[in-house]
Amino acid sequence: MDRPNLYRDIPEVVEDELFQPLIETDHFKLEKIISRGHATPPGEWYSQDREEWVVLLKGRAGLLFEGETAVQVMGPGDCLQIPSHRRHRVEWTDPNGETIWLALHYRGARGDSDEAGL
Amino acid sequence: MDRPNLYRDIPEVVEDELFQPLIETDHFKLEKIISRGHATPPGEWYSQDREEWVVLLKGRAGLLFEGETAVQVMGPGDCLQIPSHRRHRVEWTDPNGETIWLALHYRGARGDSDEAGL
Repeated sequence: MDRPNLYRDIPEVVEDELFQPLIETDHFKLEKIISRGHATPPGEWYSQDREEWVVLLKGRAGLLFEGETAVQVMGPGDCLQIPSHRRHRVEWTDPNGETIWLALHYRGARGDSDEAGL
Repeated sequence: MDRPNLYRDIPEVVEDELFQPLIETDHFKLEKIISRGHATPPGEWYSQDREEWVVLLKGRAGLLFEGETAVQVMGPGDCLQIPSHRRHRVEWTDPNGETIWLALHYRGARGDSDEAGL
C-alpha cells in the first residue's frame, strides 16, 4: 500500500515553486505546494475559477488579498478559505527553509459563476 | 476572513474521538479528526462507501488492514489511501497527546461500486 510522507522528498533547491497533485477528480484537486522564499511576482495576482481551501503545514508565509492593506501572516496549522475569483498574492515565504502547503481546489456546494453558465 | 488553525482549540480531554467537518460538498468531505489513545473497538472494522485519503499531522497511530498482519505505524506527514470498502481499523493512537488527522472522503474518478448501481 502506497504511503508517501508530505515532509519527505523535498528537493534541496526549489528553483520554482513546486505544485504536486495528490488527488484529482472531476470535482476537486488536492495538491501539495513547496515554496522557499517564493512570492507572486510584483503586480501579479492569483484569481481562480474554483474555491480554494489551503493549510500551511510547515514554514511561514504572508498572503495579501486585493483591497486589503494587512498581509496575513500564516504559520503551521493556519487555514485559509479563498473564494473563487478573489484576487490574492503570496507576498513572501520563508527564505531559509521550505514552506509546505496543502491546497484543495473545488467547486462550491452552491456552484460558482463557472457553473452558473451551464 | 476566517482563519482557523488545525492545532488550536484542542480540548484538554478527548472523551470520544472527535470528527470535525471542515468542508462538505456533494462530492467530498474534508474533516479533521482528533484522537487521544483511541482505538477501534476490538473486533470492529471501518468500511466506507467512499475512497479516503488521510494524512496524520501530529501524534502517532497504528492502522491495520484486514488480511494483513503488520500494523502500519504512522507519524507526522504520513499519508494513506484507503480504498472504498477496504476494511481497516485503528489499532492504537498515542495515549500521551493528541493525534490529529486530516481525512478526505470522496468518490473515485472512475466511480466506485455505489455509483455503478446508478
